[in-house]
Amino acid sequence: MKRMFFVILARPENPDNIGLIARAMKNTGFSDLRLTQVPGLDSLSYKTAVHAGDILDQARLYPTLAEAVADLELVFAATAKTRKNFSSLNLGDAVEKIFSFPASTKIGLLFGNERTGLTSEELRNSNFRFAIPQASRQPSYNLASAVLLTLFHIFAYPLPKKKKAFEKPLPRRGQETVIRLILKKLEAKRFVHRTNKAHVEDMVRDLFGRLTLTEKDQSLLLALFSKGVDIQAHEKERRT
Amino acid sequence: MKRMFFVILARPENPDNIGLIARAMKNTGFSDLRLTQVPGLDSLSYKTAVHAGDILDQARLYPTLAEAVADLELVFAATAKTRKNFSSLNLGDAVEKIFSFPASTKIGLLFGNERTGLTSEELRNSNFRFAIPQASRQPSYNLASAVLLTLFHIFAYPLPKKKKAFEKPLPRRGQETVIRLILKKLEAKRFVHRTNKAHVEDMVRDLFGRLTLTEKDQSLLLALFSKGVDIQAHEKERRT
Repeated sequence: MKRMFFVILARPENPDNIGLIARAMKNTGFSDLRLTQVPGLDSLSYKTAVHAGDILDQARLYPTLAEAVADLELVFAATAKTRKNFSSLNLGDAVEKIFSFPASTKIGLLFGNERTGLTSEELRNSNFRFAIPQASRQPSYNLASAVLLTLFHIFAYPLPKKKKAFEKPLPRRGQETVIRLILKKLEAKRFVHRTNKAHVEDMVRDLFGRLTLTEKDQSLLLALFSKGVDIQAHEKERRT
Repeated sequence: MKRMFFVILARPENPDNIGLIARAMKNTGFSDLRLTQVPGLDSLSYKTAVHAGDILDQARLYPTLAEAVADLELVFAATAKTRKNFSSLNLGDAVEKIFSFPASTKIGLLFGNERTGLTSEELRNSNFRFAIPQASRQPSYNLASAVLLTLFHIFAYPLPKKKKAFEKPLPRRGQETVIRLILKKLEAKRFVHRTNKAHVEDMVRDLFGRLTLTEKDQSLLLALFSKGVDIQAHEKERRT
């Protein structure tokens, strides 16, 4: 079964880069490109895409990152900097992890803006963060290079020795529902207050992002966190 | 001993590419750049090199390829097309071969002109040819991409056995405390009853076992599940 990957560029600025990335996708066998917060596609992108114009033709534009990832099941975000509240894998381990999930898992590969990288807000839309090893702190890989190296490593990944696959995760929006419920619960418990809100939210996201929640997990967690949930009704609903 | 590599560009035309290649070299820990048949270095190259201008400063220019490789011991040439008279390795095998020679071997990595690639005449200055795997015949990797992928594979060789460790999990008894708390909560919510008790317990253990709870996770989850926990006391306890 062909794996389903989606390359997502958050707020890309440089049309040349978008074209170069389409070309890198073609080189390495990827086809689904998603862009957030861009006005449209520029003819300059078609120029650098060379023979990969079809990928640009089929690219999908989204007003927000949350919408761009809503139907995906796992999101891997590329970050050059390490972030306090987010754990990070290296590229090799991230690719290993990708191939530990069933082939039908819809996987997003998320890359940030050329100058800013991914914001913490944007990282909250991911399950895993990864960094590409580099020899020196400066300069970091440019956007097109980071995408190329990531895609090539997935493309060239040795056919899995038949690892036992994990269960398929929920779409991101289902994962998001559970996370919001947990945050509300923590607020109700006054564990969250004004000064630690962002920190606690990141901790919850890091914890439950790693968990790659499945449908089975969801019903359990919903039962666990829903206030005064009617278990009978819930159970009934599950059966139907 | 640090290995000695020399990146050689035969007749590069585009100054942007030369700068991008310097940047890719910096990213991946290479420093020696040689160029053949170029009039000199363009300021445009310094622009795309970003923080890798020192590599351009030290680049050496040669009137012919034969002179550019004369003092090297082995030359590996990148070719997209297969050539009748020249055998070719794939990138992975080429990198294996590179590391089979003593570390003191002076190794040239040779890349051709953007439009023409390497001519047969130029290939005669190499010991080995290699091709970078690609998904589709067209388009081929552009020059800067081919250099980046080659250098990264040498830089990252062998695939990191030293995995970046996840945070250390709690001792099992700490994990057990959390799990018991969750089970009690589910019982209080009447999600657990006589007939499904074993099943639910297994689900909870599966879910939270996969999570490999850390100390940080524990304090969050205890706060989340403890009934009427005194957060102040809990926080205080955490600090001591």
